[in-house]
Amino acid sequence: MKLRTVVLALAAAVASLAWNAAFAAEPIQPIAGPVIKSQAMVELGKKLYFDPRLSKSGFISCNSCHNLSMGGTDNLATSIGDRWQQGPINAPTVLNSSLNVAQFWDGRAADLKAQAGGPIANPGEMAFTHELAVDLLNSIPAYKAEFKRVFGTDGSVNIGMVTDAIAAFEETLVTPGSRFDKWLLGDKHALSATEQEGYKLFKDSGCTACHYGPAVGGSSFQKMGVVAAYDTPNKAQGVAGLTGKDADRMMFKVPTLRNVDMTYPYFHDGSVWTLEEAVDIMGKLQLGRTYSKDEIAKIVAFLKTLTGKQPDFKLPVLPPSTNDTPKPKPFG
Amino acid sequence: MKLRTVVLALAAAVASLAWNAAFAAEPIQPIAGPVIKSQAMVELGKKLYFDPRLSKSGFISCNSCHNLSMGGTDNLATSIGDRWQQGPINAPTVLNSSLNVAQFWDGRAADLKAQAGGPIANPGEMAFTHELAVDLLNSIPAYKAEFKRVFGTDGSVNIGMVTDAIAAFEETLVTPGSRFDKWLLGDKHALSATEQEGYKLFKDSGCTACHYGPAVGGSSFQKMGVVAAYDTPNKAQGVAGLTGKDADRMMFKVPTLRNVDMTYPYFHDGSVWTLEEAVDIMGKLQLGRTYSKDEIAKIVAFLKTLTGKQPDFKLPVLPPSTNDTPKPKPFG
Repeated sequence: MKLRTVVLALAAAVASLAWNAAFAAEPIQPIAGPVIKSQAMVELGKKLYFDPRLSKSGFISCNSCHNLSMGGTDNLATSIGDRWQQGPINAPTVLNSSLNVAQFWDGRAADLKAQAGGPIANPGEMAFTHELAVDLLNSIPAYKAEFKRVFGTDGSVNIGMVTDAIAAFEETLVTPGSRFDKWLLGDKHALSATEQEGYKLFKDSGCTACHYGPAVGGSSFQKMGVVAAYDTPNKAQGVAGLTGKDADRMMFKVPTLRNVDMTYPYFHDGSVWTLEEAVDIMGKLQLGRTYSKDEIAKIVAFLKTLTGKQPDFKLPVLPPSTNDTPKPKPFG
Repeated sequence: MKLRTVVLALAAAVASLAWNAAFAAEPIQPIAGPVIKSQAMVELGKKLYFDPRLSKSGFISCNSCHNLSMGGTDNLATSIGDRWQQGPINAPTVLNSSLNVAQFWDGRAADLKAQAGGPIANPGEMAFTHELAVDLLNSIPAYKAEFKRVFGTDGSVNIGMVTDAIAAFEETLVTPGSRFDKWLLGDKHALSATEQEGYKLFKDSGCTACHYGPAVGGSSFQKMGVVAAYDTPNKAQGVAGLTGKDADRMMFKVPTLRNVDMTYPYFHDGSVWTLEEAVDIMGKLQLGRTYSKDEIAKIVAFLKTLTGKQPDFKLPVLPPSTNDTPKPKPFG
């Protein structure tokens, strides 16, 4: 790591600590703006994020299931993969995902770079391979030149550069500026009385035991169904799918509640379409509490104040393929 | 039509005539910038263009097959529709489609407004219905309010407004500023000697009999296979599919060659992936001429100068669904 990068990272860490300390009295902290280490890398990552040529079919890009026009999700219960395969789990939002303790519902990727390679090579998602993705990019001189500019290397593109660039773009996808953050930052008119009551109820009844921090979640793992079992035909077992341990059954990463009004349907199985129902179920299964209709309405009013500034950038234009570029295989 | 709209349309027509007259000596004219009648309608149309909720699955939008990151096409031989159905014909580019004499390969839609409703209700494409699309939009207050602002009506959204708005957005998708246009407009250094030779050959050998006008095509219908039959397993019969007349067999709208370097693969069946092969086949089948390798290289060099300014706008953020919004049906 270059000295300048280390200094920047340290400065960012110190700023982040100071920022969080200022709001330590609240379980939720405002979201800070993105720290952009390399704008050139972000621009390259944005192209890759929107490029369906990183899939076998040439039809599915990162943005297909983590659609930045729709809260960074596909708003489907479970996603559509190569040849219309039905995905096993709800696509989590990419917005504020850099704030997550780990990636995927079961946390199997340590960070965004580790995550980014997953869907490309997953036979049920983009159904490509890292080798084919790299070959494809190396066949396009405009891409090669851009990778060279960004990474300062003379050789070919490799998968590490691809996932670095996608992660760098995704790190910019934070959503500061929500009404709730304005309120936290001192604008006492930013929330209505009902919304403030909803937040108080959210804290007092224990939701913030899991949904805390700047992302209002994403910081820990928790069992889905603490007080009573969660009834679902979905086969995902959470962390137990990785460890094989009984104690890890139904342990999932706590999802962020930032922009939750846009990231329906809810839960790892995407089975619940309204915030009212989601709050009701969480109260019963996680807290052993039956919220009244009025209480649910207040919490939902609070949750809707968590929608922040959505991605704000120009649609990227992708460099065209060449005569040497491998062809997509949508049907063959 | 309001008087102001009529005056604007007349002014645009006069400007367009004057513009074309200035370049009457050449078979190809520069592309003029878009005439925007209502920026508010364009912004609404942009949202609709990117909204996959106008499909049964909630996964396919106009931009899925007419991808504005990729020359307004999907760069597939034939498109992927609902449940991964294989489309019957190559998706033509939406770029400069407002310059087409009619829409679709067989010209079955008179204009962009008539076209826009087609894929939404096509069971092999977005697989929705106009009624369901309208119901969906009416369930989202933010959309309803935007339609009201744009159309000045008090009632509900109707399909005519939807296709008006999509067409208004598509009318902005022209691509002026190509190197070829700079050359036409007097910058004699904008093209290399080879590119100019390619253009001369393109004119002298008869390509401009069909590929003429600002869009370098799109102005007429022509038989695919004039001198010799075009050999393809594709079943499309062109205009004959509408009229049933033998004389209309294999009559297709001449495609635009603007941005042709980005709109591969070529022909109505999308069977040809390189410009070299496309030029070779066109020479043989349409003109009865076998171009030399050197001639093909020159024409291809010219064709690559037709890439103009690509769409340049921010990715739209879509208003979220509500508790009353009908759910997508990707698998059910």
